[in-house]
Amino acid sequence: MKLICTLLLSLTLVYNVQSQDNPSLKTKLEKVRLEFTLNAEGAPYYAVYYADKDIIKPSAMGFTLAEGAGLDKNFEITGSETSSFDETWKPVWGEVSNIRDHYNQLTVHLKQKGSNRLMNIIFRVFADGVGFRYEFPRQPGLKYFIISNELTTFNMAGDHKTFWIPGDYDSNEYLYTTSKLSQVDNKPVVDAATSIAVRVAPDRYAVQTPLMMKSADDLYINIHEAALIDFPAMQLHVDRSNYSLTANLVPDAVGNKAYVHAPFKTPWRTIIVSDKAVDILSSKLILNLNEPSKIKDTSWIRPMKFVGVWWEMQTGKGTWNYANDADTLDANGRLIPNGRHSANTDNVKKYIDFAAANGIPGVLVEGWNTGWEDWFGNWKEHVFSFVTPYPDFDVSELSRYAATKGVHIIMHNETSGSATDYERQTDTAYRFMNKFGYTSVKTGYVGKIIPRGEHHDGQWMINHYNRVAQKAADYHVMLDAHEPVRPTGLQRTYPNWLASEAGRGNEYNAFAEGNIPEHETIMPFTRFIGGPMDYTPGIFKIKGYSDVPGRQVHTTLAKQLALYVVLYSPLQMAADLPENYAAHMDAFQFIKDVAVDWDDTKILEAEPGDYITTARKAKGTPDWYIGAVTDENSRSSTILLDFLDKGTKYVATIYADAGNADWKENPEAYQISKYLVDADTRLNLKLAKGGGAAISIKPATSGDKGIKKYR
Amino acid sequence: MKLICTLLLSLTLVYNVQSQDNPSLKTKLEKVRLEFTLNAEGAPYYAVYYADKDIIKPSAMGFTLAEGAGLDKNFEITGSETSSFDETWKPVWGEVSNIRDHYNQLTVHLKQKGSNRLMNIIFRVFADGVGFRYEFPRQPGLKYFIISNELTTFNMAGDHKTFWIPGDYDSNEYLYTTSKLSQVDNKPVVDAATSIAVRVAPDRYAVQTPLMMKSADDLYINIHEAALIDFPAMQLHVDRSNYSLTANLVPDAVGNKAYVHAPFKTPWRTIIVSDKAVDILSSKLILNLNEPSKIKDTSWIRPMKFVGVWWEMQTGKGTWNYANDADTLDANGRLIPNGRHSANTDNVKKYIDFAAANGIPGVLVEGWNTGWEDWFGNWKEHVFSFVTPYPDFDVSELSRYAATKGVHIIMHNETSGSATDYERQTDTAYRFMNKFGYTSVKTGYVGKIIPRGEHHDGQWMINHYNRVAQKAADYHVMLDAHEPVRPTGLQRTYPNWLASEAGRGNEYNAFAEGNIPEHETIMPFTRFIGGPMDYTPGIFKIKGYSDVPGRQVHTTLAKQLALYVVLYSPLQMAADLPENYAAHMDAFQFIKDVAVDWDDTKILEAEPGDYITTARKAKGTPDWYIGAVTDENSRSSTILLDFLDKGTKYVATIYADAGNADWKENPEAYQISKYLVDADTRLNLKLAKGGGAAISIKPATSGDKGIKKYR
Repeated sequence: MKLICTLLLSLTLVYNVQSQDNPSLKTKLEKVRLEFTLNAEGAPYYAVYYADKDIIKPSAMGFTLAEGAGLDKNFEITGSETSSFDETWKPVWGEVSNIRDHYNQLTVHLKQKGSNRLMNIIFRVFADGVGFRYEFPRQPGLKYFIISNELTTFNMAGDHKTFWIPGDYDSNEYLYTTSKLSQVDNKPVVDAATSIAVRVAPDRYAVQTPLMMKSADDLYINIHEAALIDFPAMQLHVDRSNYSLTANLVPDAVGNKAYVHAPFKTPWRTIIVSDKAVDILSSKLILNLNEPSKIKDTSWIRPMKFVGVWWEMQTGKGTWNYANDADTLDANGRLIPNGRHSANTDNVKKYIDFAAANGIPGVLVEGWNTGWEDWFGNWKEHVFSFVTPYPDFDVSELSRYAATKGVHIIMHNETSGSATDYERQTDTAYRFMNKFGYTSVKTGYVGKIIPRGEHHDGQWMINHYNRVAQKAADYHVMLDAHEPVRPTGLQRTYPNWLASEAGRGNEYNAFAEGNIPEHETIMPFTRFIGGPMDYTPGIFKIKGYSDVPGRQVHTTLAKQLALYVVLYSPLQMAADLPENYAAHMDAFQFIKDVAVDWDDTKILEAEPGDYITTARKAKGTPDWYIGAVTDENSRSSTILLDFLDKGTKYVATIYADAGNADWKENPEAYQISKYLVDADTRLNLKLAKGGGAAISIKPATSGDKGIKKYR
Repeated sequence: MKLICTLLLSLTLVYNVQSQDNPSLKTKLEKVRLEFTLNAEGAPYYAVYYADKDIIKPSAMGFTLAEGAGLDKNFEITGSETSSFDETWKPVWGEVSNIRDHYNQLTVHLKQKGSNRLMNIIFRVFADGVGFRYEFPRQPGLKYFIISNELTTFNMAGDHKTFWIPGDYDSNEYLYTTSKLSQVDNKPVVDAATSIAVRVAPDRYAVQTPLMMKSADDLYINIHEAALIDFPAMQLHVDRSNYSLTANLVPDAVGNKAYVHAPFKTPWRTIIVSDKAVDILSSKLILNLNEPSKIKDTSWIRPMKFVGVWWEMQTGKGTWNYANDADTLDANGRLIPNGRHSANTDNVKKYIDFAAANGIPGVLVEGWNTGWEDWFGNWKEHVFSFVTPYPDFDVSELSRYAATKGVHIIMHNETSGSATDYERQTDTAYRFMNKFGYTSVKTGYVGKIIPRGEHHDGQWMINHYNRVAQKAADYHVMLDAHEPVRPTGLQRTYPNWLASEAGRGNEYNAFAEGNIPEHETIMPFTRFIGGPMDYTPGIFKIKGYSDVPGRQVHTTLAKQLALYVVLYSPLQMAADLPENYAAHMDAFQFIKDVAVDWDDTKILEAEPGDYITTARKAKGTPDWYIGAVTDENSRSSTILLDFLDKGTKYVATIYADAGNADWKENPEAYQISKYLVDADTRLNLKLAKGGGAAISIKPATSGDKGIKKYR
């Protein structure tokens, strides 16, 4: 995380106190302009413009408190500063190897008349949007307080097309609805989503962030937050009549929103804006608003691909649980095995063998530890032991075996939402991991949260997730959190927190009605804006894995390959069974080859809900990988390979949908072709309905002599 | 805990299914009789009689559940068993060295018509009362369920005189009110008790247990519970018109009462009854209803007396906090000391010296660790480090110094109610204690509980306290819990849990309006029924320790001595400052001598609210100690020493109120006299208003030749 270029911090007083009662403070960068003012009642307002078009019309800011007057009006401006910042930093891993953090900052110092309470608002204006946060400085009159509501509003300039999921306190695992703002209504969506274990969405007009919108004049706008630390997640209440979005903080067990101890800074509220959809996907605004790594030595952090004892349970072939019932015991009080337990030593060895044979570094094993007979749905506090294997899982032998094969088993710590119980066990669990050579852990939070009354996205759980990330770092453990709050760029601060689920992954194709073909064309604009997702792509057996009629993956096989590029994560699972890969080893070659850490990324074309084509350069190599996905419509497009090194010849291996492929009728039909390409090549891509294409591009070698030039 | 005598377990079917629809099942022991029946709706009812007098008139039983039909009616009796049990067991420590556990048991098997759900009720009838519990056996139709209300009712036979404190979910630290049942109203009491940090008493007609009552015909009745494990505390709602008491379980953060996973047994509901008040104090019914020790090796558990860096902070002479304000830092970011911090190395050494010089094994030190600047009242989750001393507390040096003097420092872990934070730190904290030679810990729970919305006496916190006791045992640490739930005899199961506060201790005389003279004549009938209390007796400087006008201890000095015998605890503090003891070393001799573990106990006379005289024989010695206390009235009584060994001559040292002593006007006036006594001696005690007497009785030696015989 070395600073390559640190520029001036110029502090200037831009506010002339003599000028007028309620002056407007402004700052801008390129096309993005921010204005701040106090209204006649001393209430703070801000507005955002892009190329002089309204993005956020003047909108309220501030808070109401559980006790006493709010921090919402009667303010006066006691000063302000602007500064500029331009620095390039290197992430530990990511989509690019260098990130430019360039913004102009405006800090507004507010004092409340009468109470003399102080609140600062810090705006950072980037070329692709705005972030702002509230700061409560150390002061005598405001030390501990409880926020009952955040008043931050985003008054949108029109009835935008919006890609949304419900504002649910406990789940992000919904399909996206595309509608106008004026048509947002989450109730039918929530009511229908019976495959989601816990749904709590009391406000039917609330939506989750990142919220993706598109205006009638083709501006792309994304609202989210960055650096969610010690604060509840922000959802947005939609006023459908005037297209106004108001912050809705997730409450705690007693209905409070946030317990604040000044000095304190809230998370950043973020608005990414561009007239090009691809800019939304390549924005680094949220990462830039997070703090640098808290972990000094990051040498042990390694992005990786993995396979896992997982899809076979999701599809019902095996079970997580060792016995059918916790109460079914033999005469010695031992569980009676059901004979279908997947995480048994022999089966795990098969996955280890497959991983080793194919250069896959990780093997996730779920269902290895006691507790699964009876694991969620009963709000039970102590469910799992995180150090007690089932009798048929020989942890010592498997650790030894994996080590001899150069493979790491990935630990699984499902908590069933009992965060208190997990916190009691984390030290013990991570010492166990260290002892047996596990270098990463997948956590899970299925079910209602304990402490009872808390929600997955409330302040207490936000602190829990962050505490787990820190604790994992203390033990040199990498983290993949399932069912946590959606990410807000904290992977910069905790680079051991490689990925999260916090969204609707491929698994819904296994145990529920599944995802729809456009799903993966929306996810990068929404869920992925905050950070990597463990989406678990790579299902090759698209149909026939389930006894449930009509159940299938809603993509072609080629699109599953494309997801490894389109959906960025430093942890990528090859989620299907080894035998299903064995049936298509030519296609599996792409998964073997594709990287999980990149020097560069080019979003070549994108439209939320329709298509995305992404090219990435594998870290430390000259190789590029391209993924292209479409929605339920077939698609042809031409992409220019001008990002390749001029004058170098490359071999492109194209994993494309077959001509007769179709996500529903013929999803496993693909064709693989190889061509010589260079920076002048224009590739014509043809994607089937629900299809995709994956391409690897490597410098040509002497062995590639017979390969034809692409034309 | 060796079984001395185990008797028959005779199983008999006493229920004749052919007889009638709703037969009455009965069992009795000596004067106590229990009857059980189902009413016409199949609802369970029980009644208790003492010498054929109504104690509990037919009263409802059962539960309502959060979902579905309750476990309250439509039952049929599918069978029942009776058995007898008579065994004597040895507690690890206590008031007596042998405890007889003698009862007749009736188990009633109930099945709910339609649902076929099973519930058993187990009654144990002792010579001094009844205990009963509900059992939910393993069964297909009832596995996980949530109790919304317990319906257990105690229909009292009259408008009894009652000694009560409010049914507060978070505090037991009230003064007792004596009133008729029909006059119970806790609201004015709760409203006035502003010195209690957290008060939550939503039901103005609810009272706490142990609840002590006296009938018009002089029967003494005490209602409480035993073995409170994985269940909320039971308080009692008083129906003032018909003298009916109904269980009121303390709710959790979302209003549920108890999460149950069958098989499960509830705590025992207990009714102690006698026509003699002294029998209530000597009852072992609650201990007998608890399970034997879970700790196999108890050799490290040692009752003890202790002094402490404590009263000087309670009275305002010093501070727990090192700095006045957490935000007041020097240029290096370090706290600026206030110069009044009591737990500094030099001061602690003075206490260690005093303890060592007087044979006191323990020195409690509060305020040694960081966090006290800002410790409760803000519902802040992370307040204290339990391994970080203040800069002026040299833990290594003090541990070394204490060891050379043969004294143990007692750890203090105040949590400010943040149980989640404490659970994160217990392993670390107890390892720290092991490292530095601390053998016991005083915990504290001042403030609102975290998890927020939970209460001190709810199921989650009950599990927390028990978990801490187990964890402490794992580290061979003895426990003294302050502000926990009131005890229910679990000291039998966790004998390392030596004492709790959970009541209004002597400390209220320091920082608040204090206790009233009758307080210590009620406490043994109420709070102490469940287990030992760290009451912190032994204040010698009765007045003048505080700047607040009128503040004083509400006893004489002699009564403070008597409390060491009357209030049983295996942990007894000598709570006053060393210099105050130095002024009365003749009186302090009693504290030096008195035991904290006993072979035998005789309650010589007692009347709740008026007086108690208790004699105890020090464990493993021929020595007896007597404590006598009175309320605001002076008192004369004659006690017969017929418990002494016949034919042995003893020297009695009598620490009595001086003739002109008076708790208010002349509290520190005492006189010490020595006499030869024997088993025929009748001692005349004269107690001042608010006074007491303490007597040590040891076999006479050749050095006692000049001592006169008592007459």
